[in-house]
Amino acid sequence: MIKTAIIGATGYVGEELVRILSAHPQAEISYITSQSNVGQKYSDIYPNFKNIISHECIEENIEELAEKVDVIFFALPHGIACKKIAKKILDKVKVIDLGADFRLRSREVYEEWYKTEHESPELLEEAVYGLCEWKRDQIKNARLIANPGCYTTCSILSLLPLLKEGLIDTETIIVDAKSGVTGAGRSLSQGVHFAECNETTKAYKIADHRHTPEIEQELSEFAGKEIKLTFTPTLVPMQRGILSTCYAKLLDKSLTYDDVKQVFMKYYEKEYFIRITEKEVYPETRWVRNSNFYDVGFKIDRRTGNIIVVGAIDNLVKGASGQAVQNMNILFKLDEKTGLQTAPFCL
Amino acid sequence: MIKTAIIGATGYVGEELVRILSAHPQAEISYITSQSNVGQKYSDIYPNFKNIISHECIEENIEELAEKVDVIFFALPHGIACKKIAKKILDKVKVIDLGADFRLRSREVYEEWYKTEHESPELLEEAVYGLCEWKRDQIKNARLIANPGCYTTCSILSLLPLLKEGLIDTETIIVDAKSGVTGAGRSLSQGVHFAECNETTKAYKIADHRHTPEIEQELSEFAGKEIKLTFTPTLVPMQRGILSTCYAKLLDKSLTYDDVKQVFMKYYEKEYFIRITEKEVYPETRWVRNSNFYDVGFKIDRRTGNIIVVGAIDNLVKGASGQAVQNMNILFKLDEKTGLQTAPFCL
Amino acid sequence: MIKTAIIGATGYVGEELVRILSAHPQAEISYITSQSNVGQKYSDIYPNFKNIISHECIEENIEELAEKVDVIFFALPHGIACKKIAKKILDKVKVIDLGADFRLRSREVYEEWYKTEHESPELLEEAVYGLCEWKRDQIKNARLIANPGCYTTCSILSLLPLLKEGLIDTETIIVDAKSGVTGAGRSLSQGVHFAECNETTKAYKIADHRHTPEIEQELSEFAGKEIKLTFTPTLVPMQRGILSTCYAKLLDKSLTYDDVKQVFMKYYEKEYFIRITEKEVYPETRWVRNSNFYDVGFKIDRRTGNIIVVGAIDNLVKGASGQAVQNMNILFKLDEKTGLQTAPFCL
Amino acid sequence: MIKTAIIGATGYVGEELVRILSAHPQAEISYITSQSNVGQKYSDIYPNFKNIISHECIEENIEELAEKVDVIFFALPHGIACKKIAKKILDKVKVIDLGADFRLRSREVYEEWYKTEHESPELLEEAVYGLCEWKRDQIKNARLIANPGCYTTCSILSLLPLLKEGLIDTETIIVDAKSGVTGAGRSLSQGVHFAECNETTKAYKIADHRHTPEIEQELSEFAGKEIKLTFTPTLVPMQRGILSTCYAKLLDKSLTYDDVKQVFMKYYEKEYFIRITEKEVYPETRWVRNSNFYDVGFKIDRRTGNIIVVGAIDNLVKGASGQAVQNMNILFKLDEKTGLQTAPFCL
Repeated sequence: MIKTAIIGATGYVGEELVRILSAHPQAEISYITSQSNVGQKYSDIYPNFKNIISHECIEENIEELAEKVDVIFFALPHGIACKKIAKKILDKVKVIDLGADFRLRSREVYEEWYKTEHESPELLEEAVYGLCEWKRDQIKNARLIANPGCYTTCSILSLLPLLKEGLIDTETIIVDAKSGVTGAGRSLSQGVHFAECNETTKAYKIADHRHTPEIEQELSEFAGKEIKLTFTPTLVPMQRGILSTCYAKLLDKSLTYDDVKQVFMKYYEKEYFIRITEKEVYPETRWVRNSNFYDVGFKIDRRTGNIIVVGAIDNLVKGASGQAVQNMNILFKLDEKTGLQTAPFCL
Repeated sequence: MIKTAIIGATGYVGEELVRILSAHPQAEISYITSQSNVGQKYSDIYPNFKNIISHECIEENIEELAEKVDVIFFALPHGIACKKIAKKILDKVKVIDLGADFRLRSREVYEEWYKTEHESPELLEEAVYGLCEWKRDQIKNARLIANPGCYTTCSILSLLPLLKEGLIDTETIIVDAKSGVTGAGRSLSQGVHFAECNETTKAYKIADHRHTPEIEQELSEFAGKEIKLTFTPTLVPMQRGILSTCYAKLLDKSLTYDDVKQVFMKYYEKEYFIRITEKEVYPETRWVRNSNFYDVGFKIDRRTGNIIVVGAIDNLVKGASGQAVQNMNILFKLDEKTGLQTAPFCL
Repeated sequence: MIKTAIIGATGYVGEELVRILSAHPQAEISYITSQSNVGQKYSDIYPNFKNIISHECIEENIEELAEKVDVIFFALPHGIACKKIAKKILDKVKVIDLGADFRLRSREVYEEWYKTEHESPELLEEAVYGLCEWKRDQIKNARLIANPGCYTTCSILSLLPLLKEGLIDTETIIVDAKSGVTGAGRSLSQGVHFAECNETTKAYKIADHRHTPEIEQELSEFAGKEIKLTFTPTLVPMQRGILSTCYAKLLDKSLTYDDVKQVFMKYYEKEYFIRITEKEVYPETRWVRNSNFYDVGFKIDRRTGNIIVVGAIDNLVKGASGQAVQNMNILFKLDEKTGLQTAPFCL
Repeated sequence: MIKTAIIGATGYVGEELVRILSAHPQAEISYITSQSNVGQKYSDIYPNFKNIISHECIEENIEELAEKVDVIFFALPHGIACKKIAKKILDKVKVIDLGADFRLRSREVYEEWYKTEHESPELLEEAVYGLCEWKRDQIKNARLIANPGCYTTCSILSLLPLLKEGLIDTETIIVDAKSGVTGAGRSLSQGVHFAECNETTKAYKIADHRHTPEIEQELSEFAGKEIKLTFTPTLVPMQRGILSTCYAKLLDKSLTYDDVKQVFMKYYEKEYFIRITEKEVYPETRWVRNSNFYDVGFKIDRRTGNIIVVGAIDNLVKGASGQAVQNMNILFKLDEKTGLQTAPFCL
């Protein structure tokens, strides 16, 4: 059994990690930490786990945990994990960081978008961006995995096949993504108070959201040139789910639906967690809810020459904890699907 | 592996059964039937199952299926299963009926409340009411199991310990239950059209709901006398969940919280799927969502002498398909938890 | 024009008061106060009011306001209004308190349930409980009106006709009320964080909620004897609305639906804001949403001898600000409907 | 008083029209028709109107109604109104059609997108597209007004100032619009069944939605050249509201926020129903809910040269019945705001 520790387990991403790992047949949760709940039973904080796990939240001591477990998951706000993760930790234990601290390879870009100094810039080069379907080989041997963001996972997976094949005008990419409210996490604020975000839809941080440089970094890498795009996140009144609608001009306007379908098949046909919809069918977030699937469909708009790619994930699973466990599976040479085969709950 | 067939698999209860059985380690779905979707891939109807199951809906031939599988689940509207289930079927295969046709032992009561003739009254005596935690011994040897209704499961489990111990005045029982909208099933109607049931709460069929005699039958059996109660179902705008608030006068007004807690512990302490909350904590439907758990808490109102018991289940799991699989596990001598250990999704 | 001031206008009850008064043909909002937003434009806090009102929040000076306006509305948490309202204020201006401080006539009961000392007990006798349809005559000449609570308005209106006519066993009253989340107000807390109260239903403060003694006080007054009842509030995932389901044993089991309908008609037929449903039809909260209506329907359960009365209001309108304006209309001899004739928004 | 008739009053657009007109100080509802509810009281179909209106649905006889009223509102599915409206009707009465039949000036475009023959092509030239803020002068003298669609109103209002001033590259326009579920109307279908559209988000009819040519027609007219754009509608789980996010490349990349703000002010500053947000603030649908307002905000994405304009309306009010009444006010020389000054219900 792989021994795991979860740092910051009381946030929503942590909760979801506990849920997945508690049912994982080849991993076990050895330690759960939460600074504000030391000594408390985890199932008192999240009573859904009563009769399922009996862990208490312990005080966080990364160095000690590094000796005792095989992998540590960090589920902390940005700027905190990078203070706690150091080379000497990585010498002892695999680390999967679900926060943003090691996702951007450029310290400057990180500091510009996150408005804070990076505290372990020396690890940026070593960290592997854990986008499983595209970076398996690097992940296998990594010591530090930067687990991708939710909006980013959904947007990158939707655009990469087109970019790899050079099908779209890279100056014209627009991503309009819609997210459920769990994406905003457990911290209280007026904007996610039930009475103020139920029954309303709002765009926020337009062209300013921190997932923008992350999407651009990965697209640029695979496209082989620097890409800038416009990214608009939108909050919709539901628990979970991201629907990412991506727009770009096709370079060759004679491309047919079938041509593009072939491209998606080329990259994704063998991927268990990636499902391509039929023609004129577009993903809904409910078809992937509570699961690690990413569904994708697309449309070519003949009249304007645009291609529109729609992707859907569960923000807490494929967009966070599910992908983290998938990364763990890769790291430990398990079947990637292990512990992640829950069928989506569409109702 | 236990071979199973699901009759009427495209309704919500059927979908949930497919979901649970598709991940069951000791059972397999051999056949799926749906009269209106013969020849269609199940994952085209419910795309959440893409990459998970590859079954096609076949034409329904119960006699043939009875030869081929070990257990048949019927997930059909009332009045239909009783036409299809006969002694010769039961001679060959175990049957678990998720509909209402075999829940009421009295044909008269059935015909009065369901306003239709019962087509297999001869099986009523044989059928076992599949309330797992209370009827295990009978279930073990049954051939035909009548899987309890959703409101009923939640309400009966909340009241039985009090009745068994003779703690409450049986003339004063009131059940006020709240249900999510999946309880109304997949059939279209104005009352469950999104625009007309979102953002509203309504009581319906007050003192007229068909789960009333079912609750009364089971309570009466265990109380050893005939019980009548008032039952009010209420529709609330959420997908899943039943919250059942049960009221009754305590016969002995000196009873303390701890006294009653002992009673609940006596019956439920060893039950994996039953979880008793702490004092002053009451179940929420989200703590059991997507799981087979039943959570229960209670309050003694000193000022009026009433006890208030609150129970919560997921209507599609413990209230339908989860309990059906728990019944299957009992029938086939498996650990009752097999295939049912999904932690509740509280987010 | 009646000059009004609103103290504590940035809470939800305050916002709703602003909405109603801003469209009132015979009243005007002269001053808006909010301790935490002094100097801010109200329409910057609530942008729905842009182009509608241009008020700034001013510092609160009750004595000064008492000189300048005709009526002051207090929309503050309990324990605060009673510090600010004194006889010398009432000598100058009418006061309508939307909080709880003057609703309970007994200081002891207040202090027991609210766990705080009452700071103006000398005003308790003078305060008039502003349940418009039942206390018009007293309201007309009042200086201080205690505007009823939301759960209480709905529950009292449902039970009073039965009590006045002596139709029910007063030992058997149970109120199971369901409320939308705006009832919890604007203050942040985990329990009303979107991700934790969406898609779930929960009972809370069972037999402990502070509206209990308020309901009992009013029922007792009209029944002419002390009444105790069990009250269970339940939170459902919607913005607005209270559905109050009231249970009691009928004293005379031969009473028919029509007999009881006559009783409701006797008291309510001429009330514009009270609407009685047809037989077998029960109110839904959406039929009164955003309006000052109270809808009521009932069922007699022959089998148990219980009567079940279901009432519905919008918690922020008839349950708070709408009834407050109705009280103002009575105080100033206007048609009670003035400014309150918005048709419910059922969609 | 303006006498009005509403044809097809039982759909959601009809209901909203009844709501607005029932409170209009200078108009009255003379007749309500509904083919499937002849003889029924309207308040039995929509009980929110009990005590407010007492109309019965009558059989529809357009010629007779044309003699009796001043204006007829048609709230019918496309393809039906055009069969009923003829020159001889327009000789007698003003007509406001809330459906799609007279919105597209080109019969060919109509027939291509609506896949049906147009039955009154001779009226297409006469019909005036009722986009109030931009076509007042034509509306004033019109006999037949084609009331704009919901997505279109929101999208056109967001883009017109930019097009009129020639600020954007017309080859790059993308509209990603999100709508609440009432936009799908009252007809039942699996896609808007509560259990299947709650808690999910989906794009549909991408680049195929019939509002596309309507948006293009109006933009083209004001831009003075033919415009094609990509339009993606998305369904989000809420009752009401459209949020339209519009993207285009700025022609002059040196344009500042203030420059563009000036342009929006130029066209909209004096419009009561149009509200421009402050910098870095974007509209939410709740700030306009239940009202005739259109809120708009925008962002310039320096990094890509795109401008992103976000508009919000209530689909049933400014996107349908509210704008229809605004059109009536213009036709009858009333203040445009008459009967439309309800403050948005943000809670």
